[in-house]
Amino acid sequence: MGHAAESLWDVEPGESLRVGPGFVLADVDTGSTPGYPGDKKSAVADLAAGAEVFDGLQEMFFANSQLGDKRKILLVLQAMDTAGKGGILRHVIGAVDPQGVQITAFKKPTPDELAHDFLWRIRPHVPDAGKIGVFDRSHYEDVLIGRVRELAPAAEIERRYDAINAFERELADDDTTIIKVMLHLGADEQKARLQERLDRPEKHWKFNPGDIDERLLMPQYREAYQLVFDRTSTPDAPWYVIPADKKWYARLAVQSLLIDALRGMNLSWPVADFDVEHEKKRLAES
Amino acid sequence: MGHAAESLWDVEPGESLRVGPGFVLADVDTGSTPGYPGDKKSAVADLAAGAEVFDGLQEMFFANSQLGDKRKILLVLQAMDTAGKGGILRHVIGAVDPQGVQITAFKKPTPDELAHDFLWRIRPHVPDAGKIGVFDRSHYEDVLIGRVRELAPAAEIERRYDAINAFERELADDDTTIIKVMLHLGADEQKARLQERLDRPEKHWKFNPGDIDERLLMPQYREAYQLVFDRTSTPDAPWYVIPADKKWYARLAVQSLLIDALRGMNLSWPVADFDVEHEKKRLAES
Repeated sequence: MGHAAESLWDVEPGESLRVGPGFVLADVDTGSTPGYPGDKKSAVADLAAGAEVFDGLQEMFFANSQLGDKRKILLVLQAMDTAGKGGILRHVIGAVDPQGVQITAFKKPTPDELAHDFLWRIRPHVPDAGKIGVFDRSHYEDVLIGRVRELAPAAEIERRYDAINAFERELADDDTTIIKVMLHLGADEQKARLQERLDRPEKHWKFNPGDIDERLLMPQYREAYQLVFDRTSTPDAPWYVIPADKKWYARLAVQSLLIDALRGMNLSWPVADFDVEHEKKRLAES
Repeated sequence: MGHAAESLWDVEPGESLRVGPGFVLADVDTGSTPGYPGDKKSAVADLAAGAEVFDGLQEMFFANSQLGDKRKILLVLQAMDTAGKGGILRHVIGAVDPQGVQITAFKKPTPDELAHDFLWRIRPHVPDAGKIGVFDRSHYEDVLIGRVRELAPAAEIERRYDAINAFERELADDDTTIIKVMLHLGADEQKARLQERLDRPEKHWKFNPGDIDERLLMPQYREAYQLVFDRTSTPDAPWYVIPADKKWYARLAVQSLLIDALRGMNLSWPVADFDVEHEKKRLAES
Protein backbone atom coordinates (compact mmCIF):
# COMPACT_ATOMS: atom_id res chain seq x y z
CA MET A 1 0.00 0.00 0.00
CA GLY A 2 0.97 3.57 -0.47
CA HIS A 3 0.50 3.76 3.27
CA ALA A 4 2.73 0.82 4.14
CA ALA A 5 5.35 1.53 6.77
CA GLU A 6 8.17 0.33 4.55
CA SER A 7 7.45 2.78 1.73
CA LEU A 8 10.42 4.11 -0.19
CA TRP A 9 8.71 7.39 -0.53
CA ASP A 10 8.35 10.40 1.73
CA VAL A 11 5.35 11.26 -0.40
CA GLU A 12 4.04 8.75 -2.96
CA PRO A 13 4.08 9.77 -6.65
CA GLY A 14 0.36 9.09 -6.68
CA GLU A 15 0.03 12.12 -4.46
CA SER A 16 2.94 14.39 -5.23
CA LEU A 17 2.87 14.12 -9.04
CA ARG A 18 -0.86 14.14 -9.59
CA VAL A 19 -2.21 17.03 -11.60
CA GLY A 20 -4.87 18.81 -9.60
CA PRO A 21 -6.64 22.16 -9.88
CA GLY A 22 -4.23 25.04 -10.33
CA PHE A 23 -1.40 22.87 -11.59
CA VAL A 24 1.22 24.86 -13.49
CA LEU A 25 3.59 22.92 -15.71
CA ALA A 26 6.10 25.76 -15.80
CA ASP A 27 6.56 25.41 -12.04
CA VAL A 28 7.80 21.83 -12.28
CA ASP A 29 11.56 21.32 -11.98
CA THR A 30 12.40 18.65 -14.56
CA GLY A 31 15.55 17.72 -12.62
CA SER A 32 13.78 17.20 -9.31
CA THR A 33 12.89 13.92 -7.61
CA PRO A 34 9.72 14.72 -5.65
CA GLY A 35 9.03 12.53 -2.67
CA TYR A 36 12.01 10.23 -3.14
CA PRO A 37 14.73 10.63 -0.53
CA GLY A 38 17.23 8.31 -2.25
CA ASP A 39 19.71 8.69 -5.07
CA LYS A 40 20.47 6.88 -8.33
CA LYS A 41 22.12 3.99 -6.57
CA SER A 42 19.25 3.31 -4.20
CA ALA A 43 16.78 3.84 -7.04
CA VAL A 44 18.29 1.01 -9.06
CA ALA A 45 17.92 -1.36 -6.10
CA ASP A 46 14.44 -0.04 -5.33
CA LEU A 47 13.35 -0.51 -8.95
CA ALA A 48 14.53 -4.13 -8.89
CA ALA A 49 12.72 -4.79 -5.62
CA GLY A 50 9.63 -3.05 -6.94
CA ALA A 51 9.76 -5.16 -10.10
CA GLU A 52 9.19 -8.27 -8.01
CA VAL A 53 6.25 -6.71 -6.21
CA PHE A 54 4.80 -5.48 -9.50
CA ASP A 55 5.31 -8.89 -11.10
CA GLY A 56 3.51 -10.71 -8.29
CA LEU A 57 0.58 -8.32 -8.26
CA GLN A 58 0.27 -8.43 -12.04
CA GLU A 59 0.04 -12.22 -11.98
CA MET A 60 -2.72 -12.11 -9.40
CA PHE A 61 -4.51 -9.43 -11.43
CA PHE A 62 -4.30 -11.56 -14.56
CA ALA A 63 -5.38 -14.68 -12.63
CA ASN A 64 -8.59 -12.98 -11.55
CA SER A 65 -9.46 -12.11 -15.12
CA GLN A 66 -9.39 -15.80 -15.97
CA LEU A 67 -12.26 -16.26 -13.56
CA GLY A 68 -14.34 -13.35 -14.77
CA ASP A 69 -12.89 -10.22 -13.20
CA LYS A 70 -13.32 -7.52 -15.85
CA ARG A 71 -10.90 -4.96 -14.49
CA LYS A 72 -8.08 -3.65 -16.62
CA ILE A 73 -5.40 -0.95 -16.47
CA LEU A 74 -4.52 1.63 -19.10
CA LEU A 75 -1.23 3.49 -18.85
CA VAL A 76 -0.99 6.42 -21.25
CA LEU A 77 2.55 7.63 -21.91
CA GLN A 78 3.12 11.05 -23.42
CA ALA A 79 6.36 12.95 -23.76
CA MET A 80 8.66 14.90 -26.03
CA ASP A 81 11.31 12.89 -27.90
CA THR A 82 14.04 11.25 -25.80
CA ALA A 83 12.10 11.75 -22.57
CA GLY A 84 12.32 8.05 -21.79
CA LYS A 85 9.09 6.35 -22.88
CA GLY A 86 11.07 3.48 -24.32
CA GLY A 87 12.97 3.02 -21.08
CA ILE A 88 9.71 2.88 -19.13
CA LEU A 89 8.44 0.16 -21.44
CA ARG A 90 11.64 -1.81 -21.23
CA HIS A 91 12.57 -1.42 -17.59
CA VAL A 92 9.22 -1.00 -15.86
CA ILE A 93 6.67 -2.81 -18.03
CA GLY A 94 9.28 -5.34 -19.13
CA ALA A 95 9.41 -6.69 -15.59
CA VAL A 96 6.07 -8.45 -15.82
CA ASP A 97 4.87 -11.39 -17.84
CA PRO A 98 4.54 -10.21 -21.45
CA GLN A 99 1.31 -12.21 -21.74
CA GLY A 100 -0.32 -9.70 -19.42
CA VAL A 101 0.69 -6.61 -21.35
CA GLN A 102 -0.72 -4.94 -24.46
CA ILE A 103 1.53 -2.21 -25.82
CA THR A 104 0.35 -0.01 -28.67
CA ALA A 105 2.63 2.57 -30.25
CA PHE A 106 0.62 5.24 -32.02
CA LYS A 107 2.58 6.70 -34.90
CA LYS A 108 1.67 9.36 -37.42
CA PRO A 109 -1.88 8.53 -38.53
CA THR A 110 -2.34 6.81 -41.87
CA PRO A 111 -4.65 8.28 -44.52
CA ASP A 112 -7.18 5.61 -43.55
CA GLU A 113 -7.01 6.65 -39.92
CA LEU A 114 -7.26 10.32 -40.82
CA ALA A 115 -10.47 9.60 -42.69
CA HIS A 116 -12.10 8.78 -39.33
CA ASP A 117 -12.64 10.55 -36.05
CA PHE A 118 -9.40 10.75 -34.06
CA LEU A 119 -10.60 8.17 -31.52
CA TRP A 120 -11.35 5.59 -34.20
CA ARG A 121 -7.86 4.18 -34.30
CA ILE A 122 -7.56 4.21 -30.52
CA ARG A 123 -10.62 2.20 -29.52
CA PRO A 124 -9.52 -1.22 -30.84
CA HIS A 125 -6.44 -1.04 -28.61
CA VAL A 126 -7.99 -0.46 -25.19
CA PRO A 127 -6.88 -3.25 -22.85
CA ASP A 128 -8.75 -6.49 -22.34
CA ALA A 129 -9.79 -7.72 -18.91
CA GLY A 130 -6.80 -8.61 -16.73
CA LYS A 131 -4.39 -6.78 -19.00
CA ILE A 132 -2.16 -3.79 -18.56
CA GLY A 133 -2.54 -1.75 -21.70
CA VAL A 134 0.12 0.79 -22.53
CA PHE A 135 -0.31 3.56 -25.06
CA ASP A 136 3.05 4.78 -26.30
CA ARG A 137 1.67 8.13 -27.43
CA SER A 138 -2.09 8.20 -27.69
CA HIS A 139 -5.22 10.14 -28.53
CA TYR A 140 -3.51 13.09 -26.83
CA GLU A 141 -1.35 13.57 -29.89
CA ASP A 142 -4.47 14.95 -31.54
CA VAL A 143 -4.55 17.85 -29.09
CA LEU A 144 -0.77 18.24 -28.82
CA ILE A 145 0.86 18.04 -32.24
CA GLY A 146 -2.64 18.63 -33.54
CA ARG A 147 -2.71 22.02 -31.82
CA VAL A 148 0.93 23.01 -32.19
CA ARG A 149 1.07 22.25 -35.90
CA GLU A 150 -2.53 23.26 -36.55
CA LEU A 151 -3.41 19.92 -38.08
CA ALA A 152 -7.08 20.58 -37.36
CA PRO A 153 -9.24 23.72 -37.04
CA ALA A 154 -9.25 25.34 -33.60
CA ALA A 155 -12.90 24.44 -33.04
CA GLU A 156 -12.16 20.80 -33.72
CA ILE A 157 -9.25 20.80 -31.27
CA GLU A 158 -11.60 22.32 -28.69
CA ARG A 159 -14.17 19.62 -29.31
CA ARG A 160 -11.57 16.93 -28.75
CA TYR A 161 -10.96 17.68 -25.08
CA ASP A 162 -14.58 16.91 -24.35
CA ALA A 163 -14.52 13.88 -26.60
CA ILE A 164 -11.46 12.60 -24.74
CA ASN A 165 -13.14 13.08 -21.37
CA ALA A 166 -16.23 11.25 -22.56
CA PHE A 167 -14.10 8.44 -23.99
CA GLU A 168 -12.11 8.04 -20.80
CA ARG A 169 -15.25 8.13 -18.66
CA GLU A 170 -16.57 5.30 -20.80
CA LEU A 171 -13.37 3.32 -20.17
CA ALA A 172 -13.53 4.03 -16.44
CA ASP A 173 -17.15 2.84 -16.40
CA ASP A 174 -15.87 -0.31 -18.06
CA ASP A 175 -13.62 -0.99 -15.03
CA THR A 176 -10.49 0.57 -16.46
CA THR A 177 -8.00 2.13 -14.10
CA ILE A 178 -6.51 4.94 -16.17
CA ILE A 179 -3.07 6.34 -15.41
CA LYS A 180 -1.91 9.16 -17.64
CA VAL A 181 1.75 10.02 -17.48
CA MET A 182 3.65 12.89 -19.01
CA LEU A 183 7.39 12.50 -18.78
CA HIS A 184 8.57 16.05 -18.37
CA LEU A 185 12.04 16.55 -19.79
CA GLY A 186 14.14 19.67 -19.58
CA ALA A 187 15.40 21.40 -22.71
CA ASP A 188 19.05 21.01 -21.75
CA GLU A 189 18.70 17.36 -20.90
CA GLN A 190 16.92 16.76 -24.21
CA LYS A 191 19.77 18.43 -26.03
CA ALA A 192 22.28 16.15 -24.30
CA ARG A 193 20.27 13.06 -25.17
CA LEU A 194 19.86 14.03 -28.82
CA GLN A 195 23.58 14.80 -28.92
CA GLU A 196 24.32 11.31 -27.65
CA ARG A 197 22.14 9.78 -30.34
CA LEU A 198 24.07 11.72 -32.96
CA ASP A 199 27.47 10.95 -31.46
CA ARG A 200 27.01 7.19 -31.28
CA PRO A 201 26.47 5.40 -34.61
CA GLU A 202 24.64 2.53 -32.86
CA LYS A 203 22.10 5.13 -31.69
CA HIS A 204 21.54 6.79 -35.06
CA TRP A 205 18.47 4.68 -35.73
CA LYS A 206 16.78 6.37 -32.79
CA PHE A 207 17.31 9.81 -34.25
CA ASN A 208 15.09 11.56 -36.71
CA PRO A 209 15.74 15.03 -38.11
CA GLY A 210 12.14 15.80 -37.22
CA ASP A 211 13.14 15.50 -33.56
CA ILE A 212 14.95 18.83 -33.85
CA ASP A 213 12.01 20.43 -35.62
CA GLU A 214 9.84 19.36 -32.71
CA ARG A 215 12.44 20.54 -30.21
CA LEU A 216 12.26 24.01 -31.65
CA LEU A 217 8.57 24.00 -30.80
CA MET A 218 9.07 22.97 -27.17
CA PRO A 219 7.50 26.14 -25.74
CA GLN A 220 4.40 25.65 -27.85
CA TYR A 221 4.19 21.99 -26.82
CA ARG A 222 4.37 22.98 -23.18
CA GLU A 223 1.46 25.33 -23.69
CA ALA A 224 -0.45 22.55 -25.35
CA TYR A 225 0.35 20.20 -22.47
CA GLN A 226 -0.81 22.80 -19.95
CA LEU A 227 -4.15 22.94 -21.77
CA VAL A 228 -4.36 19.16 -21.78
CA PHE A 229 -3.85 19.11 -18.03
CA ASP A 230 -6.37 21.88 -17.46
CA ARG A 231 -9.00 20.18 -19.56
CA THR A 232 -8.50 16.44 -19.11
CA SER A 233 -7.11 15.66 -15.67
CA THR A 234 -10.21 14.15 -14.11
CA PRO A 235 -10.81 12.03 -11.01
CA ASP A 236 -11.36 8.99 -13.20
CA ALA A 237 -8.40 9.63 -15.45
CA PRO A 238 -5.81 11.77 -13.71
CA TRP A 239 -2.59 13.03 -15.20
CA TYR A 240 0.75 12.62 -13.47
CA VAL A 241 3.60 14.87 -14.53
CA ILE A 242 6.89 13.13 -13.85
CA PRO A 243 10.16 15.04 -13.84
CA ALA A 244 12.22 13.05 -16.31
CA ASP A 245 15.73 14.45 -16.42
CA LYS A 246 16.71 11.59 -14.13
CA LYS A 247 15.66 8.39 -15.83
CA TRP A 248 15.92 6.39 -12.63
CA TYR A 249 13.44 8.67 -10.93
CA ALA A 250 10.89 8.55 -13.75
CA ARG A 251 11.01 4.75 -13.88
CA LEU A 252 10.59 4.40 -10.15
CA ALA A 253 7.68 6.84 -10.18
CA VAL A 254 5.80 5.06 -12.97
CA GLN A 255 6.38 1.72 -11.29
CA SER A 256 4.96 3.15 -8.09
CA LEU A 257 1.81 4.35 -9.88
CA LEU A 258 1.26 0.90 -11.33
CA ILE A 259 1.85 -0.88 -8.04
CA ASP A 260 -0.56 1.51 -6.35
CA ALA A 261 -3.21 0.82 -8.98
CA LEU A 262 -2.87 -2.93 -8.44
CA ARG A 263 -2.83 -2.66 -4.65
CA GLY A 264 -5.91 -0.48 -4.82
CA MET A 265 -7.76 -3.43 -6.34
CA ASN A 266 -7.43 -5.47 -3.13
CA LEU A 267 -6.61 -8.60 -5.08
CA SER A 268 -6.45 -12.13 -3.79
CA TRP A 269 -6.02 -15.43 -5.61
CA PRO A 270 -9.30 -16.31 -7.30
CA VAL A 271 -11.33 -19.16 -5.85
CA ALA A 272 -11.71 -22.24 -8.04
CA ASP A 273 -15.02 -22.51 -9.88
CA PHE A 274 -14.69 -26.31 -10.03
CA ASP A 275 -14.79 -29.08 -7.41
CA VAL A 276 -11.15 -29.50 -6.49
CA GLU A 277 -11.52 -32.90 -4.81
CA HIS A 278 -13.49 -34.26 -7.72
CA GLU A 279 -10.83 -33.11 -10.16
CA LYS A 280 -8.08 -34.66 -8.04
CA LYS A 281 -9.89 -37.96 -8.24
CA ARG A 282 -10.30 -37.68 -12.01
CA LEU A 283 -6.63 -36.85 -12.37
CA ALA A 284 -5.57 -39.81 -10.22
CA GLU A 285 -7.59 -42.10 -12.46
CA SER A 286 -6.24 -40.64 -15.67
CA MET B 1 26.72 -18.40 -34.35
CA GLY B 2 25.66 -21.94 -33.93
CA HIS B 3 29.18 -22.74 -34.99
CA ALA B 4 30.92 -20.46 -32.54
CA ALA B 5 33.65 -22.07 -30.50
CA GLU B 6 32.04 -21.04 -27.24
CA SER B 7 28.73 -22.79 -27.92
CA LEU B 8 26.95 -24.32 -24.95
CA TRP B 9 25.77 -27.11 -27.13
CA ASP B 10 27.31 -30.33 -28.35
CA VAL B 11 24.70 -30.19 -31.07
CA GLU B 12 22.56 -27.08 -31.52
CA PRO B 13 18.78 -27.43 -31.09
CA GLY B 14 18.43 -26.04 -34.59
CA GLU B 15 19.95 -29.29 -35.78
CA SER B 16 19.10 -31.92 -33.21
CA LEU B 17 15.46 -30.98 -32.65
CA ARG B 18 14.46 -30.17 -36.19
CA VAL B 19 11.78 -32.36 -37.69
CA GLY B 20 13.05 -33.89 -40.88
CA PRO B 21 11.89 -36.74 -43.14
CA GLY B 22 11.20 -39.92 -41.22
CA PHE B 23 10.74 -38.16 -37.90
CA VAL B 24 8.81 -40.28 -35.39
CA LEU B 25 7.32 -38.48 -32.41
CA ALA B 26 6.97 -41.70 -30.43
CA ASP B 27 10.75 -42.09 -30.51
CA VAL B 28 11.37 -38.84 -28.66
CA ASP B 29 12.21 -39.15 -24.96
CA THR B 30 10.33 -36.29 -23.28
CA GLY B 31 12.77 -36.33 -20.37
CA SER B 32 15.88 -36.05 -22.51
CA THR B 33 18.07 -33.00 -23.09
CA PRO B 34 19.44 -33.48 -26.60
CA GLY B 35 22.70 -31.75 -27.35
CA TYR B 36 23.05 -30.04 -24.00
CA PRO B 37 25.83 -31.40 -21.82
CA GLY B 38 24.92 -29.38 -18.73
CA ASP B 39 22.39 -29.73 -15.95
CA LYS B 40 19.67 -27.58 -14.40
CA LYS B 41 22.15 -25.42 -12.57
CA SER B 42 24.25 -24.60 -15.61
CA ALA B 43 21.08 -24.14 -17.66
CA VAL B 44 19.86 -21.35 -15.40
CA ALA B 45 23.15 -19.52 -15.82
CA ASP B 46 23.23 -20.23 -19.54
CA LEU B 47 19.67 -18.93 -19.96
CA ALA B 48 20.60 -15.69 -18.21
CA ALA B 49 23.69 -15.26 -20.36
CA GLY B 50 21.68 -16.11 -23.46
CA ALA B 51 19.04 -13.55 -22.49
CA GLU B 52 21.63 -10.79 -22.84
CA VAL B 53 22.72 -12.05 -26.23
CA PHE B 54 19.10 -12.38 -27.35
CA ASP B 55 18.27 -8.91 -26.03
CA GLY B 56 21.16 -7.29 -27.88
CA LEU B 57 20.36 -9.02 -31.16
CA GLN B 58 16.66 -8.20 -30.86
CA GLU B 59 17.44 -4.52 -30.44
CA MET B 60 19.60 -4.52 -33.56
CA PHE B 61 16.90 -6.40 -35.44
CA PHE B 62 14.29 -3.84 -34.39
CA ALA B 63 16.63 -0.96 -35.20
CA ASN B 64 16.98 -2.14 -38.78
CA SER B 65 13.22 -2.20 -39.23
CA GLN B 66 13.14 1.50 -38.40
CA LEU B 67 15.24 2.09 -41.50
CA GLY B 68 13.22 -0.10 -43.81
CA ASP B 69 14.31 -3.69 -43.18
CA LYS B 70 11.16 -5.75 -43.66
CA ARG B 71 12.24 -8.94 -41.93
CA LYS B 72 10.25 -10.39 -39.08
CA ILE B 73 10.21 -13.55 -36.98
CA LEU B 74 7.25 -15.75 -36.13
CA LEU B 75 7.51 -18.23 -33.29
CA VAL B 76 4.64 -20.70 -33.20
CA LEU B 77 4.18 -22.46 -29.85
CA GLN B 78 2.10 -25.60 -29.67
CA ALA B 79 1.78 -28.03 -26.77
CA MET B 80 -0.54 -29.98 -24.52
CA ASP B 81 -1.64 -28.23 -21.31
CA THR B 82 1.05 -27.54 -18.69
CA ALA B 83 3.85 -28.20 -21.17
CA GLY B 84 5.37 -24.81 -20.45
CA LYS B 85 4.27 -22.35 -23.13
CA GLY B 86 3.66 -19.73 -20.48
CA GLY B 87 7.13 -20.20 -19.05
CA ILE B 88 8.67 -19.75 -22.51
CA LEU B 89 6.81 -16.48 -22.92
CA ARG B 90 7.78 -15.25 -19.50
CA HIS B 91 11.37 -16.43 -19.23
CA VAL B 92 12.56 -16.48 -22.84
CA ILE B 93 10.49 -13.87 -24.67
CA GLY B 94 10.22 -11.74 -21.52
CA ALA B 95 13.96 -11.08 -21.71
CA VAL B 96 13.69 -8.68 -24.63
CA ASP B 97 12.16 -5.25 -24.99
CA PRO B 98 8.37 -5.71 -24.95
CA GLN B 99 8.10 -3.10 -27.70
CA GLY B 100 9.66 -5.59 -30.08
CA VAL B 101 7.30 -8.45 -29.33
CA GLN B 102 3.77 -9.25 -30.51
CA ILE B 103 2.18 -12.09 -28.56
CA THR B 104 -1.17 -13.50 -29.64
CA ALA B 105 -2.94 -16.17 -27.62
CA PHE B 106 -5.43 -18.06 -29.76
CA LYS B 107 -8.29 -19.35 -27.64
CA LYS B 108 -11.36 -21.32 -28.60
CA PRO B 109 -12.72 -19.62 -31.74
CA THR B 110 -15.67 -17.28 -31.37
CA PRO B 111 -18.83 -17.79 -33.47
CA ASP B 112 -17.67 -14.89 -35.60
CA GLU B 113 -14.30 -16.54 -36.19
CA LEU B 114 -15.94 -19.88 -36.92
CA ALA B 115 -17.99 -18.23 -39.64
CA HIS B 116 -14.78 -17.69 -41.61
CA ASP B 117 -11.99 -19.86 -42.94
CA PHE B 118 -9.70 -21.02 -40.14
CA LEU B 119 -6.87 -18.73 -41.25
CA TRP B 120 -9.07 -15.64 -41.15
CA ARG B 121 -8.46 -14.95 -37.48
CA ILE B 122 -4.74 -15.71 -37.79
CA ARG B 123 -3.77 -13.32 -40.56
CA PRO B 124 -4.23 -10.02 -38.69
CA HIS B 125 -1.72 -11.18 -36.09
CA VAL B 126 1.30 -12.01 -38.23
CA PRO B 127 4.25 -9.94 -37.03
CA ASP B 128 5.18 -6.53 -38.37
CA ALA B 129 8.64 -5.72 -39.71
CA GLY B 130 11.27 -5.84 -36.99
CA LYS B 131 9.00 -7.69 -34.60
CA ILE B 132 9.12 -11.08 -33.01
CA GLY B 133 5.61 -12.43 -33.24
CA VAL B 134 4.63 -15.27 -30.96
CA PHE B 135 1.56 -17.43 -31.46
CA ASP B 136 0.52 -19.06 -28.20
CA ARG B 137 -1.39 -21.82 -29.94
CA SER B 138 -2.12 -21.09 -33.57
CA HIS B 139 -3.71 -22.22 -36.82
CA TYR B 140 -2.42 -25.68 -35.93
CA GLU B 141 -5.24 -26.07 -33.42
CA ASP B 142 -7.47 -26.49 -36.44
CA VAL B 143 -5.68 -29.69 -37.41
CA LEU B 144 -5.04 -30.86 -33.84
CA ILE B 145 -8.13 -30.40 -31.68
CA GLY B 146 -9.94 -30.06 -35.00
CA ARG B 147 -8.94 -33.61 -35.91
CA VAL B 148 -9.06 -35.22 -32.48
CA ARG B 149 -12.50 -33.88 -31.64
CA GLU B 150 -13.77 -34.03 -35.21
CA LEU B 151 -14.71 -30.37 -35.25
CA ALA B 152 -14.58 -30.39 -39.05
CA PRO B 153 -15.14 -33.06 -41.72
CA ALA B 154 -12.13 -35.23 -42.56
CA ALA B 155 -11.84 -33.74 -46.04
CA GLU B 156 -11.69 -30.24 -44.60
CA ILE B 157 -8.96 -31.24 -42.15
CA GLU B 158 -7.03 -32.69 -45.10
CA ARG B 159 -7.40 -29.46 -47.03
CA ARG B 160 -6.01 -27.47 -44.14
CA TYR B 161 -2.52 -28.96 -44.24
CA ASP B 162 -2.09 -27.62 -47.74
CA ALA B 163 -3.68 -24.32 -46.81
CA ILE B 164 -1.24 -24.01 -43.91
CA ASN B 165 1.73 -24.73 -46.14
CA ALA B 166 0.57 -22.13 -48.63
CA PHE B 167 -0.01 -19.60 -45.87
CA GLU B 168 3.41 -20.15 -44.36
CA ARG B 169 5.10 -19.99 -47.76
CA GLU B 170 3.43 -16.63 -48.25
CA LEU B 171 4.81 -15.47 -44.88
CA ALA B 172 8.26 -16.76 -45.73
CA ASP B 173 8.11 -14.91 -49.06
CA ASP B 174 7.27 -11.81 -47.03
CA ASP B 175 10.61 -12.14 -45.18
CA THR B 176 9.29 -14.00 -42.17
CA THR B 177 11.59 -16.42 -40.39
CA ILE B 178 9.21 -19.06 -39.11
CA ILE B 179 10.09 -21.22 -36.12
CA LYS B 180 7.48 -23.79 -35.12
CA VAL B 181 7.92 -25.37 -31.73
CA MET B 182 6.10 -28.26 -30.14
CA LEU B 183 6.85 -28.63 -26.46
CA HIS B 184 6.69 -32.37 -25.98
CA LEU B 185 5.61 -33.30 -22.48
CA GLY B 186 5.46 -36.78 -20.99
CA ALA B 187 2.21 -38.15 -19.58
CA ASP B 188 3.67 -38.65 -16.11
CA GLU B 189 5.16 -35.19 -15.95
CA GLN B 190 1.85 -33.71 -17.08
CA LYS B 191 0.09 -35.57 -14.30
CA ALA B 192 2.52 -34.17 -11.74
CA ARG B 193 2.04 -30.63 -13.05
CA LEU B 194 -1.75 -30.87 -13.05
CA GLN B 195 -1.56 -32.33 -9.53
CA GLU B 196 0.46 -29.33 -8.42
CA ARG B 197 -2.14 -26.95 -9.86
CA LEU B 198 -4.82 -28.75 -7.91
CA ASP B 199 -2.80 -28.94 -4.70
CA ARG B 200 -1.94 -25.25 -4.54
CA PRO B 201 -4.89 -22.84 -4.25
CA GLU B 202 -2.85 -20.03 -5.80
CA LYS B 203 -2.52 -22.23 -8.90
CA HIS B 204 -6.19 -23.14 -9.21
CA TRP B 205 -6.80 -20.39 -11.74
CA LYS B 206 -4.46 -22.18 -14.13
CA PHE B 207 -6.50 -25.36 -13.95
CA ASN B 208 -9.52 -26.17 -16.04
CA PRO B 209 -11.50 -29.41 -15.80
CA GLY B 210 -11.20 -29.61 -19.57
CA ASP B 211 -7.46 -30.14 -19.10
CA ILE B 212 -8.17 -33.66 -17.86
CA ASP B 213 -10.56 -34.32 -20.74
CA GLU B 214 -7.78 -33.37 -23.11
CA ARG B 215 -5.27 -35.44 -21.16
CA LEU B 216 -7.39 -38.52 -21.71
CA LEU B 217 -6.99 -37.93 -25.43
CA MET B 218 -3.20 -37.64 -25.34
CA PRO B 219 -2.61 -40.68 -27.61
CA GLN B 220 -4.94 -39.20 -30.22
CA TYR B 221 -3.24 -35.81 -29.95
CA ARG B 222 0.12 -37.41 -30.51
CA GLU B 223 -1.18 -39.03 -33.66
CA ALA B 224 -2.48 -35.68 -34.80
CA TYR B 225 0.89 -34.06 -34.07
CA GLN B 226 2.68 -36.77 -36.03
CA LEU B 227 0.48 -35.95 -39.02
CA VAL B 228 1.20 -32.25 -38.57
CA PHE B 229 4.92 -32.92 -38.65
CA ASP B 230 4.61 -35.22 -41.67
CA ARG B 231 2.59 -32.69 -43.60
CA THR B 232 3.83 -29.25 -42.55
CA SER B 233 7.51 -29.38 -41.60
CA THR B 234 8.94 -27.57 -44.60
CA PRO B 235 12.30 -25.94 -45.29
CA ASP B 236 10.69 -22.51 -44.98
CA ALA B 237 8.74 -23.34 -41.84
CA PRO B 238 10.33 -26.22 -39.98
CA TRP B 239 9.03 -27.80 -36.82
CA TYR B 240 11.18 -28.36 -33.77
CA VAL B 241 10.06 -30.92 -31.21
CA ILE B 242 11.45 -30.01 -27.83
CA PRO B 243 11.48 -32.50 -24.95
CA ALA B 244 9.71 -30.57 -22.24
CA ASP B 245 9.75 -32.57 -19.04
CA LYS B 246 12.65 -30.39 -17.96
CA LYS B 247 11.50 -26.80 -18.18
CA TRP B 248 15.04 -25.48 -18.08
CA TYR B 249 15.96 -27.48 -21.14
CA ALA B 250 12.94 -26.37 -23.15
CA ARG B 251 13.57 -22.72 -22.38
CA LEU B 252 17.22 -22.93 -23.30
CA ALA B 253 16.36 -24.71 -26.54
CA VAL B 254 13.77 -22.13 -27.64
CA GLN B 255 16.13 -19.31 -26.76
CA SER B 256 18.80 -20.98 -28.88
CA LEU B 257 16.44 -21.21 -31.88
CA LEU B 258 15.63 -17.51 -31.60
CA ILE B 259 19.26 -16.48 -31.23
CA ASP B 260 20.15 -18.61 -34.24
CA ALA B 261 17.42 -16.96 -36.29
CA LEU B 262 18.72 -13.51 -35.42
CA ARG B 263 22.35 -14.43 -36.00
CA GLY B 264 21.38 -15.88 -39.34
CA MET B 265 20.26 -12.41 -40.40
CA ASN B 266 23.82 -11.06 -40.22
CA LEU B 267 22.64 -7.88 -38.60
CA SER B 268 24.61 -4.71 -38.04
CA TRP B 269 23.54 -1.30 -36.79
CA PRO B 270 21.69 0.51 -39.57
CA VAL B 271 23.41 3.40 -41.26
CA ALA B 272 21.84 6.81 -40.76
CA ASP B 273 19.73 8.06 -43.65
CA PHE B 274 20.37 11.68 -42.66
CA ASP B 275 23.43 13.93 -42.68
CA VAL B 276 24.86 13.44 -39.19
CA GLU B 277 27.11 16.52 -39.23
CA HIS B 278 24.31 18.72 -40.48
CA GLU B 279 22.03 17.51 -37.70
CA LYS B 280 24.72 18.09 -35.08
CA LYS B 281 24.97 21.65 -36.26
CA ARG B 282 21.20 22.12 -36.12
CA LEU B 283 21.11 20.66 -32.63
CA ALA B 284 23.90 22.93 -31.42
CA GLU B 285 21.94 25.93 -32.66
CA SER B 286 18.69 24.80 -31.11
